[in-house]
Amino acid sequence: MKLATFKADNHERIGVVKGEEIVDLTGEDVPSGMIELIANWPKHKDKVARIAANTQPRYRVADVHLLAPVPRPQKILAIGLNYADHIAESGAATPERQIWFSKLPNAVNGPYDPIQMPKASAAIDYEAELVFVIGKRCRHVSKEQAPGVIFGYAAGNDISVRDWQFHTAQWLVGKSFDTHAPFGPWIVTSDEIGDPHALGIRCIVNGQTRQNSNTKNLVFNCFDQIAYLSQAMTLEPGDIVFTGTPGGVGQSMKPPNLLKNGDTVRVEIDKIGYLSAKMVPED
Amino acid sequence: MKLATFKADNHERIGVVKGEEIVDLTGEDVPSGMIELIANWPKHKDKVARIAANTQPRYRVADVHLLAPVPRPQKILAIGLNYADHIAESGAATPERQIWFSKLPNAVNGPYDPIQMPKASAAIDYEAELVFVIGKRCRHVSKEQAPGVIFGYAAGNDISVRDWQFHTAQWLVGKSFDTHAPFGPWIVTSDEIGDPHALGIRCIVNGQTRQNSNTKNLVFNCFDQIAYLSQAMTLEPGDIVFTGTPGGVGQSMKPPNLLKNGDTVRVEIDKIGYLSAKMVPED
Repeated sequence: MKLATFKADNHERIGVVKGEEIVDLTGEDVPSGMIELIANWPKHKDKVARIAANTQPRYRVADVHLLAPVPRPQKILAIGLNYADHIAESGAATPERQIWFSKLPNAVNGPYDPIQMPKASAAIDYEAELVFVIGKRCRHVSKEQAPGVIFGYAAGNDISVRDWQFHTAQWLVGKSFDTHAPFGPWIVTSDEIGDPHALGIRCIVNGQTRQNSNTKNLVFNCFDQIAYLSQAMTLEPGDIVFTGTPGGVGQSMKPPNLLKNGDTVRVEIDKIGYLSAKMVPED
Repeated sequence: MKLATFKADNHERIGVVKGEEIVDLTGEDVPSGMIELIANWPKHKDKVARIAANTQPRYRVADVHLLAPVPRPQKILAIGLNYADHIAESGAATPERQIWFSKLPNAVNGPYDPIQMPKASAAIDYEAELVFVIGKRCRHVSKEQAPGVIFGYAAGNDISVRDWQFHTAQWLVGKSFDTHAPFGPWIVTSDEIGDPHALGIRCIVNGQTRQNSNTKNLVFNCFDQIAYLSQAMTLEPGDIVFTGTPGGVGQSMKPPNLLKNGDTVRVEIDKIGYLSAKMVPED
């Protein structure tokens, strides 16, 4: 199933995407927000499937404003240096441990919304990433148990302000500028994805393919990531995890080829869909 | 004014602390949650002051369960190496830039709640910190304007899992274990604090003073911090900022003296109050 959060007729809604259309879940006997729906999915899953199958869609995807499928996540975790070719182009050693930072909720952005070129920097870069969404409150989840706590998957763009990222050793601020964590365009539930480690992933800027890899190349895969994180922290329904970017980021091109005002940046992942955004001035 | 979030009679409530007592705001014509109250403070401030002045308190502080005053903040930002003596004891160079990381919301903990010694580590340390709470949605705030966007102040303990903090260069996970971001015991509004850079700050473990400094020793003060952060991100009502810890952390003692099961760790800040927690096993 593909679950979206969208705005239509002046209301934020959740719905099921069927091809070019969306079945609105507003007014049905299910939670009205995505996090609540995810947290109560076992109870509502069959009902949502029934509604999706039997309802004439009320909206066309093209006519609504898609928001990030979880518009207000509690946590946005992101791992760095997690594809061999990106590690090589960054001149870094292969990490022995998972390198985790966070993106802050002000950075959440809809899948087709413009991304800001901030006043404070011109060094803005793309990073195409597979994103997964936690489905169950959990801690101390083994790698073997990990598939059971993932609700679904989305595409993400871990937009990075390269000068600010390296102001100090801590990447947080350079990864958390407003609008710099677009993800979506919806959540594809785990059952529909099957193996998350066999998905083509691409980033395309102004029609030129810049990143082109496959999630089979992840150094620490999604399940490794959950096993590590959940030793430290309780993961909650709706938490978002960016799983790392392959080689081909703008900063590592020779010469560097960062994003500019007016560029269109597209991230696509097999079985999920794509994000597409225009780079615009902050104001 | 001192504003608290607390649990009593099985409900989460917000209230005004008057000495040993709390005036419950539940049922009054004000928002029922702290973030909403902060976001609408100009409208409700006089009313809340009137209610606090004219109402017989319904609860004694000692009889309720104080929660973190903002139980579910959107962001928890924290700055590292921000007192000269702590920089020296850490063997670090004085940072030219502010070093920002985040603590994640699962780490939020009440002011008197037990703090977990996690299964995954025994290297648990305290860090007494002044915390401020953002009062207004804002971006691009100058140092001069910064006092106007601070709603109030609290005490915080930036509990740190030292081995995990240094698994990689990114501190996030070691700073975000469950229960490791206690703050409170309430928010003291800015008008009642006056100058936030003249407050004695202490950490006391089992009756022994380990940290004893003053917020006048901050390298980057609260207003510097807002000026830097707000260049990158929109700050929102209820966002929490940990402002750095003075010298005397357990890890830097010779020999190191980290926290153990059964220890009592107390953080106190002039004009605010104290946090006090027992260290307990995770289970």
